[in-house]
Parts: sequence; C-alpha cells; structure tokens
Amino acid sequence: MGHGGGGALSAELMTEVFAPAYGNDILAVLGDSAVLPLGGARVAFSTDSYVVRPLFFPGGCVGDLAVNGTVNDLAMSGARAAYLSCALVLEEGTELAVVERVARAIGTAAEAAGAVVATGDTKVVDAGHGDGIYVTTSGVGLVPDGVDIRPQRARPGDVVLVSGPVGLHGVAVLSVREGLEFGVDVVSDTAPLGGLVAAMLAATRDLHVLRDPTRGGVAAALNEIAAASGTGVVLTEEAVPVPEAVANACGFLGLDPLYVANEGRLVAFVPREHADAVLAAMRAHPQGAGAAVIGECVAEHPGMVVARTGLGGTRVVDLPVGEQLPRIC
Amino acid sequence: MGHGGGGALSAELMTEVFAPAYGNDILAVLGDSAVLPLGGARVAFSTDSYVVRPLFFPGGCVGDLAVNGTVNDLAMSGARAAYLSCALVLEEGTELAVVERVARAIGTAAEAAGAVVATGDTKVVDAGHGDGIYVTTSGVGLVPDGVDIRPQRARPGDVVLVSGPVGLHGVAVLSVREGLEFGVDVVSDTAPLGGLVAAMLAATRDLHVLRDPTRGGVAAALNEIAAASGTGVVLTEEAVPVPEAVANACGFLGLDPLYVANEGRLVAFVPREHADAVLAAMRAHPQGAGAAVIGECVAEHPGMVVARTGLGGTRVVDLPVGEQLPRIC
Repeated sequence: MGHGGGGALSAELMTEVFAPAYGNDILAVLGDSAVLPLGGARVAFSTDSYVVRPLFFPGGCVGDLAVNGTVNDLAMSGARAAYLSCALVLEEGTELAVVERVARAIGTAAEAAGAVVATGDTKVVDAGHGDGIYVTTSGVGLVPDGVDIRPQRARPGDVVLVSGPVGLHGVAVLSVREGLEFGVDVVSDTAPLGGLVAAMLAATRDLHVLRDPTRGGVAAALNEIAAASGTGVVLTEEAVPVPEAVANACGFLGLDPLYVANEGRLVAFVPREHADAVLAAMRAHPQGAGAAVIGECVAEHPGMVVARTGLGGTRVVDLPVGEQLPRIC
Repeated sequence: MGHGGGGALSAELMTEVFAPAYGNDILAVLGDSAVLPLGGARVAFSTDSYVVRPLFFPGGCVGDLAVNGTVNDLAMSGARAAYLSCALVLEEGTELAVVERVARAIGTAAEAAGAVVATGDTKVVDAGHGDGIYVTTSGVGLVPDGVDIRPQRARPGDVVLVSGPVGLHGVAVLSVREGLEFGVDVVSDTAPLGGLVAAMLAATRDLHVLRDPTRGGVAAALNEIAAASGTGVVLTEEAVPVPEAVANACGFLGLDPLYVANEGRLVAFVPREHADAVLAAMRAHPQGAGAAVIGECVAEHPGMVVARTGLGGTRVVDLPVGEQLPRIC
C-alpha cells in the first residue's frame, strides 16, 4: 500500500521502475503535469487515478475529486484545463444510481472548472475485483506565454504561501471510513484551482513553483520541491493554518496535519518582491481567502525541509515513507 | 458485465448516463477519439482503461495493449500519438517483477509507436480489490490539415476495407484464460496503427471513416458507423479474413469471429475512386499486409449491417447486446 501513498516509496517506484522503463526525461521532472510542445503551443498534460474509499464523503465524491485533481495538476503548471478525459472501471453489481451520481458529479465539477469532458471509457470488472468505481481522469490545457512554473525553479529568498487551511480532505474521508468513523464536522476542501492560479498570474507571471499538497500533504509537497530545486525550506509551523477540528482529529488519530491530504489547496513559491501582491490576489479569490505565508526558501540544508516550532526549536520535516492514509484519493 | 463489453449496453450507458451528465456534444460524436481545437491546432484526445485478464497473453500484455489501444484510437482520427499518459492501479501484493515487466512493455510499445509517455500516476488498492494491474492510458496527437475522419462521414458508395485477419486478440486471450485454456497457436494482433494510417493518408487525405474493431469486433464497429452516418453496410462474409485457427476456436467456443476483439486492425470507409490506391498502400505496410475489401456502404437499410453469406443469402449483423468476451482488453 505504501507505494501508492505519495511518499518516498511512491517516488522510488517512479524513479526506479517507471522512468527507466518509459525511457524519457519528461517524467523525471516529477511535476504535477508535463508541459509539452504541441502544434506550436505549450500544452500541459496530466493524469491521475482515483480509488478513494468510500466513494462519497463529506464535501464530495470520487467524481468531483477526479475532475478537481486533474484540473489542479494542470493549474500547477499555470494552465487552465480545457479538455478532460474520464475512464471508469466499474465493479460488477454497482448500482446504476451510484454510477449516475458519480457521473453527474463529474459533469458538475468539469463545468465549475470551465473544462469539457471530451472523451471517456467504461470497463466493468468482476464483482469483488474493484470498489464500486475507480475513476481515471486526464486533462490538457494551454500554458500562457511567459509562464514557467515547476519545482526546479524554487530559489533561496522565495516566500512560501499556502492558499488556505490544510488537512480537511484527509480528515473528512477518514471521518466516514468504515471501521474508523468518528464524529467531526469537517468537509473536504475538494475544489478546482484554475481560477485562483489565473488570479495569481495576474499579479505576476513570475510564479516559481505551484504544487497541490495531495497525498503526503504539505510535508511531501515541500520535500519534493526542496529535492527538485536543491534548496532548503524553512516552515513556520504555527503559521500553517490548521482548523481546530482537523487538529483535534489528528490528535485523536495520531496524525500530523502536515502529512494529511488536501484536494483544493496549493503551496506557492513566489519571489519576495511579488509576495505581497500574490498574497493579496489570493485572498481576494474565494479559493484563497485563507491564504497565508508559511515559510521561506533558503540556501542552507539543500533538499531538506525544516520546521520552526512554536517553542523556538526546529525539527526536520521528512518525506513520509509510505502510506499515512491509504486510499485517500 | 455487459455494460463494459462494447455492445448495445455500453452504448446505452454512454448515451443515457454519461453524455447527459457531462453535458456536452463532443462525447456524442462517439468516435474513438475526440478532435478538439487547442492553441490553433486540431488535437486528437483519447482515453481507455485496460482490465484484461490474464495480464499476460500470447503476443502481449496489459501494458502494450494499453499503449497500442490509445495510439490506435488517435490514429482513427488520422493523428499520430505524440504524448501518452499512463495511470496504474496496482493491487496490493502484486510482485514488483510483474509491475516492472508491464512498465517495460509500456515503454517499448510507446517507442514503437513514436510516442512519449509524458506523465503518469500510480495508486495501490487493497489485496483482492483489483486484478494485479489496471492500466489507463490517455493520448494526444495532432490531426493533419485537411483530414476529417469520423463515423458520420460514411457515404453510400464507400468501399469497406479491413487491414488484416480478424479475431486474433480475443482468441489469444481466451486461449490462456483460467478455466478456459485450450491449445491453439494464436497470437494477439496488438500493434500500433499510426504508421499504417499515415501510409493510407499518403494515398488520399479523403479517408471517410477509420475504426479499430476492438470490443464487439468488426460487427460492433460497422454497426456504430452505420448508426452514426445513417447509411447501410453490406458485408461480404467470405471476404472477411478469418484465420483457420480463429475459425476453429470460435467454432469450439460458439463464438462468431465478427464479434471477437482485435487490437491491431482497422476498418476503413474509403471513397470508391480512392479504394484501389488505399488498398495498395495498406498492403505495402507491415500492419496492412493482409488488407482486404470486405464490403460496401449503401443507401438502403440505413443504420443496419447486412452480411451476404456464402450461400447467396443475407443475414442481419446486429450490435452485440452485452458482453461476448468479458475482460478482453
């Protein structure tokens, strides 16, 4: 299970198995989406499979999650999703009403993101060999001229921003998971981020890095950026917006909110001179109302993320090894 | 299971559930890939999930099948695949050696098709909730200027061609399926068709329809074209190239070779004046060496496919209702 968790084991699978097998360097960029030359334009292209359990959770379902996830991966390159594909693997015996509900969620989420579901596929597997519905979305969108957003572009001096409170998606899914149900008033943050990114780009085209902290949470996102860019990251732990209900649930479950998945948040590395303008643009957008400065990019400890704790100390924020929260997306 | 079989139930799911839920007309074209305006170019975009059982079969595996399937869907719009995405759902406990073998097959098949695997994803589901590996590929490619290939363009007078012997993939998979093993020397035809289509387009840009007869076989492909174009199709049954081993296996299993899946074949509707040139171009290409004229497009019985039998009679070739061969791709 750890190999699917978005942590060190996932990264190892990518660098040790898939990158050599596929024989190319584009995958090695390890961004959320690939930016590719096609027909004279720069096209962002991304895919993700969604195997979340249960299919429906407070604030969303596998359908909107799959749309928002791919829309957001494209947004992390600065692209607005133009077209989406949607491939469903249905488990034999899944009620048609469930399929219809997920399909409607897909359509509604695509419309909200301004994207068109242009092509699809449906396969059916034997009863017991699935979990109702697995959804795989892919998407394409144009990267605007002059925009070059990727993990390698983090620079010492960059200000690190987060677009809102963290940990909501992971805690919302766990709160209704069979065998782990607990009463908590938390709703997933699943949302499309293309509009927020467009607003940030209106403040400056020179955004260095964007990343949506999904599997592995903010901790994994920052570690991947530090590794890709060869810089260090210093996180101000108490500046990270953690809702009280998330903090309580994490305390109860023995989780660190920094490692919990989000599906409607982004972290941004922004040149210091543009940070105020970008933060203001974020706060003026519904998806960025809770935006905050949470740290900075430094030349020290390259590849490493360090948190300044409330007590004045520091601690290393590692890449999670395996799966803290299985089947969260 | 029938809803995933590529027959009437699959079509019903598409028109009754997904098209209204996704709220767009592009899906309604029901071609193998969507052709979309993007950045001033026409981009073909397609996706398919592969849940074939077993993962490895004579002539291929789920990895090359997934690459060739999407490459071929793009080719059916006249596009060469430029970039592919590849999302894997792994079952917990699947041996790493199996994952590596499938990944290598993906890389090798992409290289053979001249495409780059540009982005990917891996999820892991609990043991028992998968079948080793499900692979979902998507692809994008440019449609050349002046090319407009889609099912709606079939016209009375068009000549119907097939690129080679039919039924090999389905019989090859069945021949090694647990519980159904039978000795037969048949190898899947899984292959990329982008090069063959380029050779056909060099003979004429005015190809009307291309379709790869996968799930539901040649019968389903012809029925979909007849329905989309409002024309009739007359098939000369004895002109369809059916290898003896396929005929024997189908006899043994009670299957009609016209309904058996292919993964490296295409059917083409070509204006009569270009048919000889296209047939010659096909036969000169390795993937089209066994090409043959198998019928014609007519104004009579619109939406219906009729076979002229060897005895001089005719019979209706229906769209299969459900699943003749489950989990074949």
